Amino acid sequence: MSYNDEIDVVHLTQELMRCPSVTPTDAGVLNVLQAALEKIGFECHRLVFSDDNTPDVENLYARFGTKGPNFCFAGHTDVVPPGDLHAWTVDPFDSIIRDGKLYGRGAADMKAAVACFAAAAQRFVKSRKGAFDGSISLLITGDEEGPAINGTRKVLEWMSEQGEHIDHCVVGEPTNPNELGEMVKIGRRGSFTGFLTVEGTEGHVAYPHLADNPVPHLVAMMQALDQMHLDDGSEHFQPSNLEFTTADVGNPATNVIPKFARATFNIRFNTHHSLDGLDEKIRALLDGIAAERGASYTLKVLKNSEPFLTQEGDFSKLVAGSIEKHVGLRPELSTTGGTSDARYIKNYCPVVEFGLVGQTMHKIDEHVPVGDIEMLADIYTSILEGYFAD
Amino acid sequence: MSYNDEIDVVHLTQELMRCPSVTPTDAGVLNVLQAALEKIGFECHRLVFSDDNTPDVENLYARFGTKGPNFCFAGHTDVVPPGDLHAWTVDPFDSIIRDGKLYGRGAADMKAAVACFAAAAQRFVKSRKGAFDGSISLLITGDEEGPAINGTRKVLEWMSEQGEHIDHCVVGEPTNPNELGEMVKIGRRGSFTGFLTVEGTEGHVAYPHLADNPVPHLVAMMQALDQMHLDDGSEHFQPSNLEFTTADVGNPATNVIPKFARATFNIRFNTHHSLDGLDEKIRALLDGIAAERGASYTLKVLKNSEPFLTQEGDFSKLVAGSIEKHVGLRPELSTTGGTSDARYIKNYCPVVEFGLVGQTMHKIDEHVPVGDIEMLADIYTSILEGYFAD
Ligand SMILES: [Zn+2]
Ligand SMILES: [Zn+2]
Repeated sequence: MSYNDEIDVVHLTQELMRCPSVTPTDAGVLNVLQAALEKIGFECHRLVFSDDNTPDVENLYARFGTKGPNFCFAGHTDVVPPGDLHAWTVDPFDSIIRDGKLYGRGAADMKAAVACFAAAAQRFVKSRKGAFDGSISLLITGDEEGPAINGTRKVLEWMSEQGEHIDHCVVGEPTNPNELGEMVKIGRRGSFTGFLTVEGTEGHVAYPHLADNPVPHLVAMMQALDQMHLDDGSEHFQPSNLEFTTADVGNPATNVIPKFARATFNIRFNTHHSLDGLDEKIRALLDGIAAERGASYTLKVLKNSEPFLTQEGDFSKLVAGSIEKHVGLRPELSTTGGTSDARYIKNYCPVVEFGLVGQTMHKIDEHVPVGDIEMLADIYTSILEGYFAD
Repeated sequence: MSYNDEIDVVHLTQELMRCPSVTPTDAGVLNVLQAALEKIGFECHRLVFSDDNTPDVENLYARFGTKGPNFCFAGHTDVVPPGDLHAWTVDPFDSIIRDGKLYGRGAADMKAAVACFAAAAQRFVKSRKGAFDGSISLLITGDEEGPAINGTRKVLEWMSEQGEHIDHCVVGEPTNPNELGEMVKIGRRGSFTGFLTVEGTEGHVAYPHLADNPVPHLVAMMQALDQMHLDDGSEHFQPSNLEFTTADVGNPATNVIPKFARATFNIRFNTHHSLDGLDEKIRALLDGIAAERGASYTLKVLKNSEPFLTQEGDFSKLVAGSIEKHVGLRPELSTTGGTSDARYIKNYCPVVEFGLVGQTMHKIDEHVPVGDIEMLADIYTSILEGYFAD
């Protein structure tokens, strides 16, 4: 037990970043983190999960203390691939500092935030001389950027089986668009994906009366989906929005009327809707057009996630207050952006998200200011202090 | 000179069909035809043409006589590939007769018609004892089913350079939908192909305001093209018609807004329009939608062929009358169907098309009734008799 040994947050970040842990590879990154946590006194559980048609993934659940309440920090140590190495001005896994900025894959998303929380835990535990009424835990997955099958969801199920209860959770995803402290995420929109196929009758363009071209049917359906009014948003949510991600026929012959036409769309939606509600609404719309045109379609859907909102209250106020204390800025409580593992955690306890600036995440030359890393460690420390006050 | 030796039209058809002359392969088929024509007294010119990025192709121009008028029969000896050999109930290049039908690739399209014309020429020349005021010629290409670059168009150019003039032409494509004698083609619609590309700004579906999805722009343009009213047809032409042949984005990521969306369409159009007129009309329509939506597009066009109509007159009456004489049916004078090499010949002389029943052309188990072959030879003979009467 040496919780008195200060964790150098930038150094720990660099150690984590130097492991090329592109999903599903661990590349030793959890060993680095586990060593740092065990030194403070965390009890660590390494959890490898397996499933059909997806690689095995390593995860880590670490806890300091045995009592409740259990404050949890959730994050991931896997990263997206670096992409075109020639486009980088640095080695993406060298983690070098240039002009006060730390460069490399995972700097923003989100190895630095993991290091910040480890450092915050050490500082807080040290300030309490190792004793306080409650626990601190870390739920770290290696499968957030990948299929997310052997990651957070399965760790939470394992915890539930073990009787490991968490009371509140901060997810360390990069939540700030441009500047540290701008934005806390208190919810996320849901995500619904639809795969629409229209089947017609193939033929020759010179004999259209012998064919039934599926393309105009698909175009009419796409037009209707595009014009569908979902809602005007709400206090905490943007209006729900549908985007087409692809449309494909794949017919190279310019004199042939094709048999199939396909389109894929994704809806990011707020709490005015549910996955099942959207499914029903969309099928009703498409049924109408299909009937009108004498067309037939099939719709396969992926119900990715329901929207959720962690109601404003003491917990979000604690996080926002801790940010304001260090940054001098009251963060916006937002629900914008993509999905995150918070969608799983919200089934277990209130969850908010706060991390670094996401501007360069997943991009070439990903980087964050070193000063932001230091400040995020301070903010996380204040959150722990506030959470376990009195 | 042995124009007295009757040509057995079915036997000659079978000889031609037993050469597997899938474009651009000749497989000896023109030698078979040339031998038959030389025996009657035709002077034969074998013409091999070459061009960039397309195979060399053999063609045949044969002429009996030196005086005018020169009556020309045009056709092709190449065939489309047989496709799935397991699906055929016969060997596609065996040319066997079963239940009074001749089976095999090229039976309908159009080796039998070529043999019919050779037989008709022999019969007519024999009836005139080798002497009449005029000439009979055959323009036979091996590049009709392929790129059509080294075929009829180049033979016509070569003829023009040689001072070889033709006065009237019958193309032997299978023109009858179901029964021999139903339909003569006196013109063809034009064909215009458009390749439409909309460029947007790629992005993530969760941040649509940072992207510009090209798919809804494309859908709006496709909808407008689909609803564009071209005309109501005319006495001899169906209404012009646009068909989409494909639409493609090719984006496999369901969370990514793509950068490009593409569609291809083909217009079969009548003499109310021209290739340039359609080009202008379509660009005006797309410009309007692009301006309205703040979208940008590019349109590449292939101006395949202008529509044409051989005015009803003595020539079409001669062909129709010859058909009626043998079949007891007045054929419809039509302009339906795809394009044919008549689109090139119409620049040189009046051209009509008449051949066998096309029902099984390009299909598995292509076949024609043996009786139809005999009758077509009789019809072609009557056309020559009428053409060279007094
Ligand atoms: Zn992340
Ligand atoms: Zn043909």
